[in-house]
Amino acid sequence: MAAQRRIDLVLGSVKRLLRIGATANLLNLLQKQYPADLAQIFGELSDRDREAAFSLLVERNGRLAMEAAAELGPEAGALLLASRPAEEIARLAPEIPSDDAAALIDHLPEELSEAVLQMMRPKESGVVENLLEYDEQTAGRIMNPNVFALSEDMTVGEAITELQSNRDVEMVFYLYVVDERRHLVGVVSLRRLLLVSPETPLKRIMTADLISVRVEMDQEEVARQVAAYNLLAIPVVDEENKLVGVITVDDVIDVIKDEATEDIYRLAGVASDEHAFTPARESFRKRLPWLGINLVTAFGAAAVIAIFEDTIEALPIVAVFMGVVASMGGNAGTQTLTVVVRGIALGELTWSNSRKALLKEVLVGIGNGVVLGALGAAVVWALPWGSPMLGLVLGLAMVINLFVAAATGTLIPLGLRAANIDPALASSVFITTMTDVFGFLSFLGLVALFAEYLVLA
Amino acid sequence: MAAQRRIDLVLGSVKRLLRIGATANLLNLLQKQYPADLAQIFGELSDRDREAAFSLLVERNGRLAMEAAAELGPEAGALLLASRPAEEIARLAPEIPSDDAAALIDHLPEELSEAVLQMMRPKESGVVENLLEYDEQTAGRIMNPNVFALSEDMTVGEAITELQSNRDVEMVFYLYVVDERRHLVGVVSLRRLLLVSPETPLKRIMTADLISVRVEMDQEEVARQVAAYNLLAIPVVDEENKLVGVITVDDVIDVIKDEATEDIYRLAGVASDEHAFTPARESFRKRLPWLGINLVTAFGAAAVIAIFEDTIEALPIVAVFMGVVASMGGNAGTQTLTVVVRGIALGELTWSNSRKALLKEVLVGIGNGVVLGALGAAVVWALPWGSPMLGLVLGLAMVINLFVAAATGTLIPLGLRAANIDPALASSVFITTMTDVFGFLSFLGLVALFAEYLVLA
Repeated sequence: MAAQRRIDLVLGSVKRLLRIGATANLLNLLQKQYPADLAQIFGELSDRDREAAFSLLVERNGRLAMEAAAELGPEAGALLLASRPAEEIARLAPEIPSDDAAALIDHLPEELSEAVLQMMRPKESGVVENLLEYDEQTAGRIMNPNVFALSEDMTVGEAITELQSNRDVEMVFYLYVVDERRHLVGVVSLRRLLLVSPETPLKRIMTADLISVRVEMDQEEVARQVAAYNLLAIPVVDEENKLVGVITVDDVIDVIKDEATEDIYRLAGVASDEHAFTPARESFRKRLPWLGINLVTAFGAAAVIAIFEDTIEALPIVAVFMGVVASMGGNAGTQTLTVVVRGIALGELTWSNSRKALLKEVLVGIGNGVVLGALGAAVVWALPWGSPMLGLVLGLAMVINLFVAAATGTLIPLGLRAANIDPALASSVFITTMTDVFGFLSFLGLVALFAEYLVLA
Repeated sequence: MAAQRRIDLVLGSVKRLLRIGATANLLNLLQKQYPADLAQIFGELSDRDREAAFSLLVERNGRLAMEAAAELGPEAGALLLASRPAEEIARLAPEIPSDDAAALIDHLPEELSEAVLQMMRPKESGVVENLLEYDEQTAGRIMNPNVFALSEDMTVGEAITELQSNRDVEMVFYLYVVDERRHLVGVVSLRRLLLVSPETPLKRIMTADLISVRVEMDQEEVARQVAAYNLLAIPVVDEENKLVGVITVDDVIDVIKDEATEDIYRLAGVASDEHAFTPARESFRKRLPWLGINLVTAFGAAAVIAIFEDTIEALPIVAVFMGVVASMGGNAGTQTLTVVVRGIALGELTWSNSRKALLKEVLVGIGNGVVLGALGAAVVWALPWGSPMLGLVLGLAMVINLFVAAATGTLIPLGLRAANIDPALASSVFITTMTDVFGFLSFLGLVALFAEYLVLA
């Protein structure tokens, strides 16, 4: 049975059991689910049902409830926790990996979050507080500080004994080896331990040439390395190369998804922390500035048209077609922008090969301009209220505007990247402003230039 | 040293060594790199340098060369291999995992790919050909068929011996357990083997309740499951629940990236297999149809304006402002569309909670419409060639158009999803067509309706 259908069935039962108040059955059902499935189910319940189901679960199986909250993501998860008493959160937080706990606590209302940290046992709250000291979106923030490490003086047999006595460490597959001052010196895979005799010294079988990241590294770069080298986990070290944590591939997958969402959102002028069910008031507030910028640029484009008001008065038909030139430029520019921004994000496009990309985009832009300009010209020619000369002007303007679209769509994100600004911020709004302005300028400018032939035609 | 800087340094040396023809030094340097780094370096070399460096490497260290080609991705990797003789490719292909080999061979020119398959040893080409029989983008296509499985009758000690004699299986961390007819019956983690005595039967320590996927499942759904359940690998079974392969998390990361790229591209009307350095001719051909659709819709919007040609003739100033209403609608619609499409892709938004999403988006749209409409109205009122009545009309049209933007931006992707079509195909082109048409209709319609007050004003 497909996972989605199973979840839909469970969701239906949860709703029904909540309605008839069959608490024991409901708890039974909830406890059989994976945390990720619970998160999805919670996500689809009404606010009231979600709170009721979560309350029940948190009292019976606190760990599973916390895991589900963590799977919901820090914002939505913290929203669920916010109605619970501080001491309960403080008691349950250590049940999940500290990076997840830190992210949840960080998103609680400030007073509650402070109360929780105060009530946690010093050792545990210390770990969470340490994590919260790293900047958001860095390796330090997403790492798990409870990293299992072996001493370089151990034998394979001692390492296995050590491993057997630490049963609750999160996902162990690489075993990191440290010296007496906890400097990272090597790595051994779990599998390798099985293949050699117990008295072999770890030093002899470990790989000393290993990939690690610094605590302050941007999470996007961490994700890129884990993905590029096909790693399951990457060790995190401080500035002295001391082992301070580990980032596992499941956290990296979350980062890759978040960064992709961020890119998609930025291109469209949406705040990166919005999602489908952000409350309307908050979405309204977050989208308004972006639309405000667009209002300004739209009036800017209108000002360009206003320059040619006399032309329009003399030849109102041009008002009908000027939008076609602008719209074609906007779409072609968005295509170029998207390919360039994604190319930068995936690391294919760098400053050193940018000239090649620009050349390509300009060629594509002019090619599309010529073909579509000719088509557009033919349509305008053929229309009862069109004319061959007006068609020619429209076609020419389209070639110019598609060239502008290609050039700005490539250069603006590359320039932002060179200035260390996220190229995705060169969102469609800027590109479409350029193509609106140049679309109106080229078309209306050409019309004004050839006005005598056009009015006569 | 940051990875990027290290790669840039190596890239510089590679270029220099190629120029002076220092083959031995160059090979030395290349052989020290990780496959992923080589792929990036190859990506940034000129076509001629890339071919030269690859030729050298393939003769000295065929396996590393193949790994680098695989890391480049099937299209670019196959392009590099295309100039090599078929027997060389046939000899080297078995050096990399069969799913990677299959993807590369599949992208070779048809004649070469057939020659390669014919020259491979029957067993090996059989594996590759079997993979190629599964549809693209399914679990079968990305799985590794060389999956290591243990018999359910084994003891832990026998399992470890078995593992020790199979040293070259790709990344083992979960050990799948099968019955005598190779039905998947359970899973044991490598770590668990270390924690129990050798005579324990596997049956006793294995987990029978495990997550698997069917060969024909869409790769996006596979990725979603691996990500949701934080798995390192997922077993693939056929319709009889027989174990036929395994998909590891590194392949899943590639799928997640590809699917994100596909979403970003589709929203912008770009073919999902385009990338920054797709040859200009091919990009031109791929983008043309999309821009062609836009040409048709742009003329459609122009036709709406043409209905109101008399109005524009009587009051040319409206031609200046009509684009503002359309542009605001286009941008607001793109915001809504992006949040909705991403929400569907991430599984947050489903049919059952879509009413809530629609309500939210409509509220946000009307809210933004009222605020920005009022602002726009004020600007038009204040302008020397504006008027309060024209401002009012503009503001009203903006509210109407932002409502249309919110409604279509939500309903079109949800409707496509319900019809089992990728919602990202509801790209900006369709939304901006709607907002252009309704922008012009509402603004020019209101102008025509209140014409007598406007001309007098």
